[in-house]
Amino acid sequence: MKFVSILMGSKSDYDIMKYCTDTFEKFDVKYEIIISSAHRSPKRTTEYIKNAEEKGAVAFIAAANMAAHLAGVVSATTTKPVIGVPMEGGVMDGMDAMLSTVQMPAGMPVGTVSLGKSGAINAAYFAMQILAISDKELAVKLKEDRITQAKKVETDSKSIEVIL
Amino acid sequence: MKFVSILMGSKSDYDIMKYCTDTFEKFDVKYEIIISSAHRSPKRTTEYIKNAEEKGAVAFIAAANMAAHLAGVVSATTTKPVIGVPMEGGVMDGMDAMLSTVQMPAGMPVGTVSLGKSGAINAAYFAMQILAISDKELAVKLKEDRITQAKKVETDSKSIEVIL
Amino acid sequence: MKFVSILMGSKSDYDIMKYCTDTFEKFDVKYEIIISSAHRSPKRTTEYIKNAEEKGAVAFIAAANMAAHLAGVVSATTTKPVIGVPMEGGVMDGMDAMLSTVQMPAGMPVGTVSLGKSGAINAAYFAMQILAISDKELAVKLKEDRITQAKKVETDSKSIEVIL
Amino acid sequence: MKFVSILMGSKSDYDIMKYCTDTFEKFDVKYEIIISSAHRSPKRTTEYIKNAEEKGAVAFIAAANMAAHLAGVVSATTTKPVIGVPMEGGVMDGMDAMLSTVQMPAGMPVGTVSLGKSGAINAAYFAMQILAISDKELAVKLKEDRITQAKKVETDSKSIEVIL
Amino acid sequence: MKFVSILMGSKSDYDIMKYCTDTFEKFDVKYEIIISSAHRSPKRTTEYIKNAEEKGAVAFIAAANMAAHLAGVVSATTTKPVIGVPMEGGVMDGMDAMLSTVQMPAGMPVGTVSLGKSGAINAAYFAMQILAISDKELAVKLKEDRITQAKKVETDSKSIEVIL
Amino acid sequence: MKFVSILMGSKSDYDIMKYCTDTFEKFDVKYEIIISSAHRSPKRTTEYIKNAEEKGAVAFIAAANMAAHLAGVVSATTTKPVIGVPMEGGVMDGMDAMLSTVQMPAGMPVGTVSLGKSGAINAAYFAMQILAISDKELAVKLKEDRITQAKKVETDSKSIEVIL
Amino acid sequence: MKFVSILMGSKSDYDIMKYCTDTFEKFDVKYEIIISSAHRSPKRTTEYIKNAEEKGAVAFIAAANMAAHLAGVVSATTTKPVIGVPMEGGVMDGMDAMLSTVQMPAGMPVGTVSLGKSGAINAAYFAMQILAISDKELAVKLKEDRITQAKKVETDSKSIEVIL
Amino acid sequence: MKFVSILMGSKSDYDIMKYCTDTFEKFDVKYEIIISSAHRSPKRTTEYIKNAEEKGAVAFIAAANMAAHLAGVVSATTTKPVIGVPMEGGVMDGMDAMLSTVQMPAGMPVGTVSLGKSGAINAAYFAMQILAISDKELAVKLKEDRITQAKKVETDSKSIEVIL
Repeated sequence: MKFVSILMGSKSDYDIMKYCTDTFEKFDVKYEIIISSAHRSPKRTTEYIKNAEEKGAVAFIAAANMAAHLAGVVSATTTKPVIGVPMEGGVMDGMDAMLSTVQMPAGMPVGTVSLGKSGAINAAYFAMQILAISDKELAVKLKEDRITQAKKVETDSKSIEVIL
Repeated sequence: MKFVSILMGSKSDYDIMKYCTDTFEKFDVKYEIIISSAHRSPKRTTEYIKNAEEKGAVAFIAAANMAAHLAGVVSATTTKPVIGVPMEGGVMDGMDAMLSTVQMPAGMPVGTVSLGKSGAINAAYFAMQILAISDKELAVKLKEDRITQAKKVETDSKSIEVIL
Repeated sequence: MKFVSILMGSKSDYDIMKYCTDTFEKFDVKYEIIISSAHRSPKRTTEYIKNAEEKGAVAFIAAANMAAHLAGVVSATTTKPVIGVPMEGGVMDGMDAMLSTVQMPAGMPVGTVSLGKSGAINAAYFAMQILAISDKELAVKLKEDRITQAKKVETDSKSIEVIL
Repeated sequence: MKFVSILMGSKSDYDIMKYCTDTFEKFDVKYEIIISSAHRSPKRTTEYIKNAEEKGAVAFIAAANMAAHLAGVVSATTTKPVIGVPMEGGVMDGMDAMLSTVQMPAGMPVGTVSLGKSGAINAAYFAMQILAISDKELAVKLKEDRITQAKKVETDSKSIEVIL
Repeated sequence: MKFVSILMGSKSDYDIMKYCTDTFEKFDVKYEIIISSAHRSPKRTTEYIKNAEEKGAVAFIAAANMAAHLAGVVSATTTKPVIGVPMEGGVMDGMDAMLSTVQMPAGMPVGTVSLGKSGAINAAYFAMQILAISDKELAVKLKEDRITQAKKVETDSKSIEVIL
Repeated sequence: MKFVSILMGSKSDYDIMKYCTDTFEKFDVKYEIIISSAHRSPKRTTEYIKNAEEKGAVAFIAAANMAAHLAGVVSATTTKPVIGVPMEGGVMDGMDAMLSTVQMPAGMPVGTVSLGKSGAINAAYFAMQILAISDKELAVKLKEDRITQAKKVETDSKSIEVIL
Repeated sequence: MKFVSILMGSKSDYDIMKYCTDTFEKFDVKYEIIISSAHRSPKRTTEYIKNAEEKGAVAFIAAANMAAHLAGVVSATTTKPVIGVPMEGGVMDGMDAMLSTVQMPAGMPVGTVSLGKSGAINAAYFAMQILAISDKELAVKLKEDRITQAKKVETDSKSIEVIL
Repeated sequence: MKFVSILMGSKSDYDIMKYCTDTFEKFDVKYEIIISSAHRSPKRTTEYIKNAEEKGAVAFIAAANMAAHLAGVVSATTTKPVIGVPMEGGVMDGMDAMLSTVQMPAGMPVGTVSLGKSGAINAAYFAMQILAISDKELAVKLKEDRITQAKKVETDSKSIEVIL
């Protein structure tokens, strides 16, 4: 069983991270999602990560706000790829979460995606791109999705465009 | 042949991205590296990406400074995972490159790593973590590296630590 | 046929960019407007630009938010003047879009105007100032508009001013 | 006589703006350059602008640092296109100059280019793109320059690239 | 006749600057207030300033948003003290207006007060402190106001304080 | 009598600082809370601090917004530990208050906690951690609270988690 | 005796504030300058301020870095005009000092000038503009200085300008 | 045995944190100092913390740069007071380390001190203020130090002050 494992620092992150699980469901990709805090439940967090890794987690997604340490903790606990999603809600529209997630020291990478909703969706896409390396069916779906995205741009444009 | 493909926006990025290729060499991981600009050589950039993908590129690393669009262009051209390294040298110590790299729209992910040298190294680590999913030997090396990193901390500490 | 060509990264930019087309209409200036994304529809974007240039586009306006690469892509595809409008909606009130738009490398200029609504209007004004170099009628209109703007300041002041 | 007119807020800006005049000379484009401050010599500034406009200035370039008002003053005095170059040297690596230059109110556009040296060069390119609308020879040169820029990327790459 | 002269860049600043005139009225201090833009009505602005100075303006207050050049223009036109009030409404909660107002070059001072409402009130206080140097009655009022302010703190505290 | 003393710069801070006193009450920790401004009532502020110190204040908490000097004033008046809580409401989501609170010169420490509500709660926790050094009962409560916090994470997770 | 009183937070500020005293000396304006810290010597600070006020201080200038509270303390102690000079040396090129100086609460104004050297000079100019209200000789000097400033711009320009 | 325990994220932090241990030595306060990384040696970090707490650590100081998670990890592992020192060297002069240290979630406080050298010294002072609550001798020393600090200000002033 191959799946992606999602950790959120608190319940309030779920409204946004729902876009992440929705994306996985749209592409029929297996995922786990739990709330576990880097600070409030550090033991639960590391135990979950090790457990998930053994069960087949191929990549991890960690979403947190403010001094967002969760992705860093996941990165320190596993050598699987870790994708960080900075949440809004702290200082400077989430700049605190972004810097706390992305500025990891050499040897402990976190692949950080955009802030908030776009990031929640992109975390799923990024994880699927990793899965797709050895999953041809998913790879095809991701390529088709690009066509769908491009078509949506055209459709959106139709309703307002002015061409001379 | 599986390898990681590195693109830099300009020659001046090489001083920093050398840390990225050094890291790959330390772990005996195959890589390609070229200079190709999102703006100055857009055709070369997209052709290289498609070519590299066919030849076996498993993931891409893109390093650029200022309005760093290179990682975005790579992400728009392939559905392989794209890792962005923001370079210093613009406004606010490279904040312009960081925001231009990480703030990608939904559906077009870039996994952004830290700014500058740490990021150059982490881009290699992150790419290797992706490769290691289907490369057990590399996976073992990455786990051993964690032990090495932890030991280095202890050794560093020895030279200065004061324990009562 | 001489006209100005407007590209928006997504449909949500239209609410703001409507102020741009309204300004062109007020001055009877021909324009085209389409939605085309730097990332979601790169081919459509470059094809449209080349096409528009052949048809007579004198200048381009590109509006995008977050890692706003659209103006950069337009600049890389044409040697006509490109005006960038950073949209709000990302980090730090649109600072991400502003830096991604303005911080272009040497040789690939984007003339960036203010953020959001003022920028949408100013993009139109800036394009018209370019057109007016060889369109005396428009040049006169722009000079008259300055008088109108100055008069509006006086009228606005009348309703509240206190003069001893 | 058609030319581009460059204004700098103080003598210290010349080290950077030399890159602007060098660019014009490389392309055989006529320019004027003077020092004139928005605050220290406001009368000289407005008189020079009106004078230059009458003599044939097609576009203006204004470079200033800190509370960089110069481009705004030029924009308020002429309806020709005004290109602003924010100089480094104030707060946050020149963020003060950038915001003071770009955030113009609706109806008074300044097309702002990147900070410092890249901006000095891009101001020249942007002005030449405007001139090239009615100067076919220059238009050809600008297109050829794109090829030169692309070739330079390839040459730069050759010296360091690793292709498998 | 001695008075303070207030200029606002646009009508929308009046909601905030009303706190400034209210403060003057509370202390029976004479003031003028007009709307005049640094860019839209530069001639009106300089003429008003010279006129006001002749009529007895002891100090000037200038309020503007975005690339807030108004205070700088006033400072360049008169040698009377100029107080700048940065308005909210641009990038980063008014950081653009603050930097555009405060970062004046040597020899052209603007005394900048806090952003928005507090700044509108403080501009009045600062102007009154200047007037009070040669107006003993006002000086007494300002000292009494300090006592009133201190008492208000105590009264506010009473309603919620917990003392053991 | 041992207690913690809380000072707020203005009445508007109370909505947030109520979370601080609520936290003390939950743990049965004695506290005082008053409004006293660094600027509006400096004498009251220093007198209160000295008084509180004599009565048994073990630590001080100071909450203020904008140019938040209150914590610095407390730190300058006592050698007891001072905890600073930056309030939102100024520039850049409270960045002004954060920098004004944390950036104290060598020899005059303020221990700054997070911005706003989280900071109000954490100020109480931090003060209790100081008290708990010599209060075993409180130390036990704080350890139990950690278990409660960890359990809450698990409970929160239950309602939404997906485990394969 | 009328004079301006300058306070600096620490000795290291003197290198910059020397530009302030040099400016006063150039205009033959009397000044006092001392080092006194808002935090390290609060009693000395308030006593000096009251003393200086009695002796004839017409305005105060306060220079400090980091959590620059000095200008605020001066403002809270006197009702004379207080000019704040933010010093570089902390976070974000002195943005901490700027925000700590300018963001004063309503009723306690600080007129803040630019960061660092320009600010040191402008603090002197601003104070002289205040003195000049009742000192005709100084008022004349300030007007003449404007002419000198304007001439210097012309002279600077001469050495580099290119006029067609 | 009562002591303060200092953790640094990497060896490069020692140049700055030496100011912290120097301060402890000046006041004859016992301390431990080790290098241990939140990410590179998480197990060592938590084991050390628990060990130090048992041996008598009264408070912890944690210094780290970039995505500075170390103080947060210490806070999550102990209920003793944790003082965070953000190190320079990342983005925006250490703003990344500051936000990653200070913006902790409710229930997990870190008392953050100023950036860099001043912070290293202040961390020692803050820890000593905590120790001094139950150590009268140290409390006296801290009060005497304030007098020394105030005297140093006076001495510093003497060498440059100008008093009329």
